[in-house]
Amino acid sequence: MKVGLLGGTGMVGQRFVQMLSNHPWFELTVITGKTSVGKNYGEAVKWTLNSEIPEEFRELEVVENSLENLRNVDLVFSALPSKEAREFEMELVHRGIPLVSNASALRMESLVPLVIPEVNPDHLSLINKQKELNIGPVATDPNCTTTVLTLPLKPLHDAYTLKKLNVASYQALSGAGYPGVPSYDILDNVIPYIAGEEEKIRKETRKLLGTVEENGIKMADLDIQATCVRVPVTNGHLVAVHAEFDEEVDVDAAMKLLKGFSPEPQRLGLPTAPERPIHVREERDRPQPRYDRDSEGGMSVTVGRLRRGANSKSLLFVATGHNTIRGAAGQAILLAELMKARKLI
Amino acid sequence: MKVGLLGGTGMVGQRFVQMLSNHPWFELTVITGKTSVGKNYGEAVKWTLNSEIPEEFRELEVVENSLENLRNVDLVFSALPSKEAREFEMELVHRGIPLVSNASALRMESLVPLVIPEVNPDHLSLINKQKELNIGPVATDPNCTTTVLTLPLKPLHDAYTLKKLNVASYQALSGAGYPGVPSYDILDNVIPYIAGEEEKIRKETRKLLGTVEENGIKMADLDIQATCVRVPVTNGHLVAVHAEFDEEVDVDAAMKLLKGFSPEPQRLGLPTAPERPIHVREERDRPQPRYDRDSEGGMSVTVGRLRRGANSKSLLFVATGHNTIRGAAGQAILLAELMKARKLI
Amino acid sequence: MKVGLLGGTGMVGQRFVQMLSNHPWFELTVITGKTSVGKNYGEAVKWTLNSEIPEEFRELEVVENSLENLRNVDLVFSALPSKEAREFEMELVHRGIPLVSNASALRMESLVPLVIPEVNPDHLSLINKQKELNIGPVATDPNCTTTVLTLPLKPLHDAYTLKKLNVASYQALSGAGYPGVPSYDILDNVIPYIAGEEEKIRKETRKLLGTVEENGIKMADLDIQATCVRVPVTNGHLVAVHAEFDEEVDVDAAMKLLKGFSPEPQRLGLPTAPERPIHVREERDRPQPRYDRDSEGGMSVTVGRLRRGANSKSLLFVATGHNTIRGAAGQAILLAELMKARKLI
Amino acid sequence: MKVGLLGGTGMVGQRFVQMLSNHPWFELTVITGKTSVGKNYGEAVKWTLNSEIPEEFRELEVVENSLENLRNVDLVFSALPSKEAREFEMELVHRGIPLVSNASALRMESLVPLVIPEVNPDHLSLINKQKELNIGPVATDPNCTTTVLTLPLKPLHDAYTLKKLNVASYQALSGAGYPGVPSYDILDNVIPYIAGEEEKIRKETRKLLGTVEENGIKMADLDIQATCVRVPVTNGHLVAVHAEFDEEVDVDAAMKLLKGFSPEPQRLGLPTAPERPIHVREERDRPQPRYDRDSEGGMSVTVGRLRRGANSKSLLFVATGHNTIRGAAGQAILLAELMKARKLI
Repeated sequence: MKVGLLGGTGMVGQRFVQMLSNHPWFELTVITGKTSVGKNYGEAVKWTLNSEIPEEFRELEVVENSLENLRNVDLVFSALPSKEAREFEMELVHRGIPLVSNASALRMESLVPLVIPEVNPDHLSLINKQKELNIGPVATDPNCTTTVLTLPLKPLHDAYTLKKLNVASYQALSGAGYPGVPSYDILDNVIPYIAGEEEKIRKETRKLLGTVEENGIKMADLDIQATCVRVPVTNGHLVAVHAEFDEEVDVDAAMKLLKGFSPEPQRLGLPTAPERPIHVREERDRPQPRYDRDSEGGMSVTVGRLRRGANSKSLLFVATGHNTIRGAAGQAILLAELMKARKLI
Repeated sequence: MKVGLLGGTGMVGQRFVQMLSNHPWFELTVITGKTSVGKNYGEAVKWTLNSEIPEEFRELEVVENSLENLRNVDLVFSALPSKEAREFEMELVHRGIPLVSNASALRMESLVPLVIPEVNPDHLSLINKQKELNIGPVATDPNCTTTVLTLPLKPLHDAYTLKKLNVASYQALSGAGYPGVPSYDILDNVIPYIAGEEEKIRKETRKLLGTVEENGIKMADLDIQATCVRVPVTNGHLVAVHAEFDEEVDVDAAMKLLKGFSPEPQRLGLPTAPERPIHVREERDRPQPRYDRDSEGGMSVTVGRLRRGANSKSLLFVATGHNTIRGAAGQAILLAELMKARKLI
Repeated sequence: MKVGLLGGTGMVGQRFVQMLSNHPWFELTVITGKTSVGKNYGEAVKWTLNSEIPEEFRELEVVENSLENLRNVDLVFSALPSKEAREFEMELVHRGIPLVSNASALRMESLVPLVIPEVNPDHLSLINKQKELNIGPVATDPNCTTTVLTLPLKPLHDAYTLKKLNVASYQALSGAGYPGVPSYDILDNVIPYIAGEEEKIRKETRKLLGTVEENGIKMADLDIQATCVRVPVTNGHLVAVHAEFDEEVDVDAAMKLLKGFSPEPQRLGLPTAPERPIHVREERDRPQPRYDRDSEGGMSVTVGRLRRGANSKSLLFVATGHNTIRGAAGQAILLAELMKARKLI
Repeated sequence: MKVGLLGGTGMVGQRFVQMLSNHPWFELTVITGKTSVGKNYGEAVKWTLNSEIPEEFRELEVVENSLENLRNVDLVFSALPSKEAREFEMELVHRGIPLVSNASALRMESLVPLVIPEVNPDHLSLINKQKELNIGPVATDPNCTTTVLTLPLKPLHDAYTLKKLNVASYQALSGAGYPGVPSYDILDNVIPYIAGEEEKIRKETRKLLGTVEENGIKMADLDIQATCVRVPVTNGHLVAVHAEFDEEVDVDAAMKLLKGFSPEPQRLGLPTAPERPIHVREERDRPQPRYDRDSEGGMSVTVGRLRRGANSKSLLFVATGHNTIRGAAGQAILLAELMKARKLI
């Protein structure tokens, strides 16, 4: 299956390129850019990953975003900045070019499924609606912090029904793209503001945990309060989660649920699916971004410090995950794999 | 007034030494230590502050903790590690040697006031009880994170009555003492665990906001959930605070309360009191530890990002303050000044 | 004396503004900018210093670089980026507007003195030549790293005559301006390349240590090899210096020379001159940027680890100094003070 | 071949354990420790590597350093701290227990080869001398910084003959062991002193590049000056090298020599040998520790910024390599492989 990649030179774009190199199902044949159109990918990109640029893409010419350039691909991944994404992604959607987007532009559209493959694969049924309207198929995956938060909440929500969430984040530098945060701003410092992030957590989490209805997703009935903070960490977002449920929660039982979580992508054995999407660490000081971000190639979220809150319906924990792998490119690829397994693309 | 300092070589001890140099009311004449007994202070201390060691203390011999060594002082400050503090502090208390302690050992004792001078100066009335029992006078100041959290909560609690708190902290390295956190552990990382800290926040905050009763302090009726995290910042703790009140909160009114907060230490013009104990920043990305920790010599707490939470009784904000100045030595000195102004010592 | 400042919103520009606030001799009345023309300085600047923006400049309107805007000032300081500096600075020079520039554009021009006030104040005699040609007066101060290197070399060169220098630098982030180095690039890393820096060290050091001749400066006869490296430090450049001299060097005698160095700016008691331009630390692990950069308000260079090299004519040491104060704005102001004291402006 | 490991819980010891897991030739059967004797390795170690503790060693009991405990092994690796190493290593040597040591204790002994397998494998001929005296076999590998420096110098020395070296280092935190450098000391800072390091570079480099003679190694005739500095980098030492040779050096030819360097370990295809021991990067800002430390599993040294110095016999470059892999455990294992291939053990 030939795939195209929109915005392939940014930090998330690079992860797509890295993870699509030698992918068993997808062959990356088109990379688009903006300021670097006409250059070979190897020259165009300011490569920031530890591996080398995959040889097979070094000489590939970066082209501009256009339907013409995408006419020979079967699927398009989007790693566009949100502002630039909306117009062109809408064009793809209306032309019926299959799209899996990591951009935020379409995430909250009523007929566009916003999906973490392990959390709400059933939302992909919206694609049937799309077909009726002769649009799509299109699906999106959520913001990186929302992903690290919501993946471990899923089995807990299923068991105890979430009612309220207080979240504080410790977000890595790569989440700001490149060049991103100036080093002078963040060394010996933390910055307690990330534009748009808290609202994304509030909205996207409720959509992810929502239920499919006739004309879209009914958002989960859930109060969410979030404070998002940038910290001097290269990769790996961490969230401190204080969750309140409708029912009493037993910490040991909750831990068991997290450890045993093995939903559809794992059962299907999708190529990019980690063996266990949620890892639980029982050391008192884990998870930590530097040690846990690369768990199962960066596709697992690691949870720790599970403990009771102020009352028996309250559970506190900490979770960390790789923001550009599980939180972006890796998850979008996993989503496309799920869609293909379900013959939606 | 001659003062002695217990544990003068540690990180908090050094701050005491720095801040007591040329203090208008207190003359530091005795410094105790443990492994460095018999050395001059200048040799004994691994000085970690940016200023130089005050000349007048360089040649002062470090002595061991003993009543004998403290017989000529009118007041003792304690910067002892908590484990070592209890026994010797109790001895001082029973011998009637005035003590202001930054150690956690006695903070939760029923007849020992735990005081932030701007928050609960009325708790000092417990000293009358102490006198009746022929102990003390002794007072303590709270943990550094609790201080940064509770100081700005005070005027809000007075106006709206706190009901529930969710707190996540971003704590500086100096809070762990010296040598403290190994650099290999924290570079490109955060560590979501600080021994004992979350419990201190829960207990001490409730005592600080509590009310004086016959036999001690009635703890404030308040649910507190906290996650404490170490971050790679030299000095300055930051807290993300999600507060719920009994009454509706107006964000602008709350800001006004914080800005106008000018309690007893300010009215008395105590030497170490900042002009304004709470600063409010309206930029969207402030406060930040590196820029705001030294506000008014490190004695002010800076608040920002005041905003509504999920409902009208909920208020979210971020606060930062210097953990070894306002959060430790500076506050203990301010407390002693208040006690002297009230003739309690 | 009314002064104007070119490029007042950048990192060096801000230092000028901070240090010119309440200056006893200079009154800053004009600030120029580029993208921020028309805004008040308080809005225009992304302030990165720990102090607040001086009140008196908050409302000052940023104007563009033009002779018209500078017609009422007696002296111009330049903190322009080098590329932009050349043309406009040349215009000022030819119009006879007194200029003290921290930009690199004119540093190597034959009739332009490149001066560290403590090192080569005699080079200011070039201004007499300038007058003959109806240009200037104009003087420049060197690159930040060159300054930290050359200031302590001066008394050693006078005593033993430098022959060869091997230098490796550890340069702070603020030296790259703002936004400067992306945080993702430098966290848990060092970057062994700084554009143009090694050549500046080679050329400027030889000019600073050179001698005045009929038509300019005769460069010192000196081999210099340098490797410049960016490190994750906010402020304060450090250099490891391996120096070879024509004559034998005694380490103790060299230390004495450094400690006793008290040249013209100190003898004149210029307002910005530190009491001792060179501090010597004898601890085995000093100087260090975080502890020594603010020595005498950032105007002193701190030297340590003085030791013999492979032979008796070789001396090794480490030096550190504040790159935007002694290495830029502070030094330019000191230079202007020296020029004024000598009635050259 | 059964092997024992002395000092298996420290930072270098952990690397040995990690790299000996599933080693094709060596089976690790004994791990010694000091404070952790009697515990299982999994409990005893404060694991600081990103991989998990190898399963097969988790339950292995840590034993004390004694001949008795090593009686069933065919080879001993030592990762002991130098102070503790000397006495026990000498005992092993005199009992004829084969020893490959990363400790510095015996490195400079006249009959003990100090070997980088790619640099001076011929020095292993000293083992024949050892046999005559009924000691050993014993071999050591050099200090981490010396390794990163000397490996790329080897082909250049062979071609042009080194005469003088000026070296400045940028050394990672893991080089100080664990807990090592306190985070409060090094954040926003560099520390220009590492105990003993400069002397090790001076002596070990000359021995490594020396020649075998009747009674030991004749040190290379070479002036070395070094300044060693700790920087806030987790892993990967970088050195700035200014080298002077007896003969003229052509930069392109030198680069070719480095790229083509393929000595004995590579020709033999030893299991731990990297394909190319020296990598050359031509980007202007490489190598960098974070990007290049893991080159070929951390066993390659990466060189860049090759350029001419002040004269035609002078060559400047920068090199980086992983200090606990190539600079310690990995290199010791490679050395043992070479010794086994040569049937010396």
